[in-house]
Amino acid sequence: MKNRIPVIILTVIIVALAALLVAQFIFIRNQATPTRGVMPLVEIAAQEPDSAQWGVNFPNQYSTWEKTGTNATRTTYGGSVNFDKLAVDPRLVMLFAGYPFSKGYTEDRGHANALLDVRDTKRVNEKTPGTCYSCKASENPGLWGELGMEAYDKIPFSELGQRINNPIGCANCHEAGTMRLIVTNPALDEALKAQGKDWQTFTRQEMRTVVCANCHVEYYFKGDGKYLTFPWAGGTSIEAIEQYYTDVNFTDWTHPDSGAKLIKMQHPEYEMYSNGSTHYNAGVACADCHMPYTRDGAAKFSTHNVQSPLLNAETACGACHTDVGYVTARVATIQKQVADTMGATEDALVAAITAIKTSAANSAANAAALDEARALHRAAQLRWDFIAAENSMGFHNPEEALRILAAATDLARQAELKAVQAGLPATTSGN
Amino acid sequence: MKNRIPVIILTVIIVALAALLVAQFIFIRNQATPTRGVMPLVEIAAQEPDSAQWGVNFPNQYSTWEKTGTNATRTTYGGSVNFDKLAVDPRLVMLFAGYPFSKGYTEDRGHANALLDVRDTKRVNEKTPGTCYSCKASENPGLWGELGMEAYDKIPFSELGQRINNPIGCANCHEAGTMRLIVTNPALDEALKAQGKDWQTFTRQEMRTVVCANCHVEYYFKGDGKYLTFPWAGGTSIEAIEQYYTDVNFTDWTHPDSGAKLIKMQHPEYEMYSNGSTHYNAGVACADCHMPYTRDGAAKFSTHNVQSPLLNAETACGACHTDVGYVTARVATIQKQVADTMGATEDALVAAITAIKTSAANSAANAAALDEARALHRAAQLRWDFIAAENSMGFHNPEEALRILAAATDLARQAELKAVQAGLPATTSGN
Repeated sequence: MKNRIPVIILTVIIVALAALLVAQFIFIRNQATPTRGVMPLVEIAAQEPDSAQWGVNFPNQYSTWEKTGTNATRTTYGGSVNFDKLAVDPRLVMLFAGYPFSKGYTEDRGHANALLDVRDTKRVNEKTPGTCYSCKASENPGLWGELGMEAYDKIPFSELGQRINNPIGCANCHEAGTMRLIVTNPALDEALKAQGKDWQTFTRQEMRTVVCANCHVEYYFKGDGKYLTFPWAGGTSIEAIEQYYTDVNFTDWTHPDSGAKLIKMQHPEYEMYSNGSTHYNAGVACADCHMPYTRDGAAKFSTHNVQSPLLNAETACGACHTDVGYVTARVATIQKQVADTMGATEDALVAAITAIKTSAANSAANAAALDEARALHRAAQLRWDFIAAENSMGFHNPEEALRILAAATDLARQAELKAVQAGLPATTSGN
Repeated sequence: MKNRIPVIILTVIIVALAALLVAQFIFIRNQATPTRGVMPLVEIAAQEPDSAQWGVNFPNQYSTWEKTGTNATRTTYGGSVNFDKLAVDPRLVMLFAGYPFSKGYTEDRGHANALLDVRDTKRVNEKTPGTCYSCKASENPGLWGELGMEAYDKIPFSELGQRINNPIGCANCHEAGTMRLIVTNPALDEALKAQGKDWQTFTRQEMRTVVCANCHVEYYFKGDGKYLTFPWAGGTSIEAIEQYYTDVNFTDWTHPDSGAKLIKMQHPEYEMYSNGSTHYNAGVACADCHMPYTRDGAAKFSTHNVQSPLLNAETACGACHTDVGYVTARVATIQKQVADTMGATEDALVAAITAIKTSAANSAANAAALDEARALHRAAQLRWDFIAAENSMGFHNPEEALRILAAATDLARQAELKAVQAGLPATTSGN
């Protein structure tokens, strides 16, 4: 009997531990807040376009995403109010003459307004291709899967719109079930492959930047099929993108006053940010600043109210920087330096366009010199627009923005001079 | 007897503690290393020019200062080797045509070589005023005290040189006895006063930047007396300095090809750094990077081997930045961006000078337009030189450097156009 006492004690301990383990397991299963690795409340269909359904499992992410529909706050140079950029800076009307952006160019609002805004813009008409929905709807991953991007891009905008009811949402960046971040836009997948990159091998932190490139990039519509294409085959610097467009002989429109074959740049946030910016090089992802980790009680999550970090700098910048007042003042200084420099570039572009127009009206003008002036106008304007269309007033990569603007001004002034010289009698041209 | 035992024990403890205290006091008094607040080994005369004498009390500071005479290391864009800048960038010969910098322009070496180098430069001749010694010798504080700066500046360079034997040293920044940092250059004292500032009220950390402004600034020689003056009455931005020179109608020389009245800028490190740079705004002093705290055994001191922080980045940058490899790569990126942009500015300046020269050779040229072109050349070149003469290839304030270079290129290209237009028959000028 005496020898059995230790055995009994050990058995009791083992049973007690086993009971505790079972109790813990039951407790964990019964936790209501859905988090990574825990069973969801409802099952989300693959590529489900309705973000509200995903929201059942992820109420914090969903309710903050909803705020992108209502957070109408303006910052010094941007924000989420659809103000009229053409009224703020009338030079844009001349720079975009002959192109829809001279008719309507409003500041973009948040993700939840993407669909409303694209249907409201004056830039859409009966000729608009369906490709324009590529960055506006959470139906896209499903439609691309069903139709293929080639067929999708060939459907007219008005016709495709009948199948689209949901703005940018969960399905644009997440895989249902695993919730992992994924590249959903075939154009991004192809552009990365053209650079020899496979996003499937990227880390989660890398994906927290790359998924933004589903939309926040420069792109163009290739060929008659308006096939959505990112011009990255030679790299993502402005010089590489310019070379790409030269190689494929692409042009968005011909400026009616200068006759230059121009490129409209579209929000190249990913390119500017990832091209050697100090934050990118330090390993900071887009989401770190634009979707900072936040708390709801004990739950920690990335806010999906994607917006300017200046609007919640304590959380967005404060995660890394101790003195947020210092940081926001620094942003203001840099953005003013970029804005001032950009203004000078626009003045130079206006001067170039005016000079080319004047000389072109002279039937005796030197045609070859005029073409040189037009080529310089193109090179200048695509550089300027790469910074002007980029939504950070240079802050995503300040030195790169200023470097590019300095080059743009230089080229625009050279265009102006070349145009003046083109209009002169051969003996006085000085060339 | 039994009652006395505790008393005896307590007494023994008290005696032992007292003996320890005395022993510690003797130990402290016998420490050989002189440090702040400890008696010096020798007494230093006020404004003593011989740094070796100060070195008896401060051997670590002195022996590191001595290294500035021998640390012949070149960095990508600077360093402490007197290489020929005109050979590296031949455009400078044209930009400085008609001015001594087109004859000899070598990179500056360290403090201990200042005297050797100023006597060796091709820019000194029989007309050179004594003012040129203002930033080269540790006799200066004594001479300014004895003669006053006005008389000092009127003595010819060759004559003043007979009283000068010591390069930049201790007396240029320190007060003997207290060793506190002081403004010794009367021109700096006057420039600060003109801005309503009294350096006597500055903190020590502020002085660790301000003493560098004894020399590392833009200056000019006012009037026939060649009175050393910093052009800061309206501020230290390039725009304020330009306005100052316009107001006092100052010009360093007239460019022989363009006829523009130009300003040579001199190493405005203090102005660039203190005008809103991120390091300055964060409270970092010049000395924090260029004279980082270092150790000799148990002694901690500021190294006086003042040099590029890139040459000891682990110590210089590593005091604040954890990833020094990241930081130096960042410096390289920024400096290349600035260097590329600066090269474009130089091309534009060369084009402007060439165009003005061509048009000016035409007797029928529009004189008023030519003068406008010359004014633009002046505005462009002083901006470019503000960055080119500044010893950091823009790194002291990257965005400001790029902003100014962008403006310089813009102005230079406008000068070129205006010159071309000036040379045209009135009917074709387009203006």
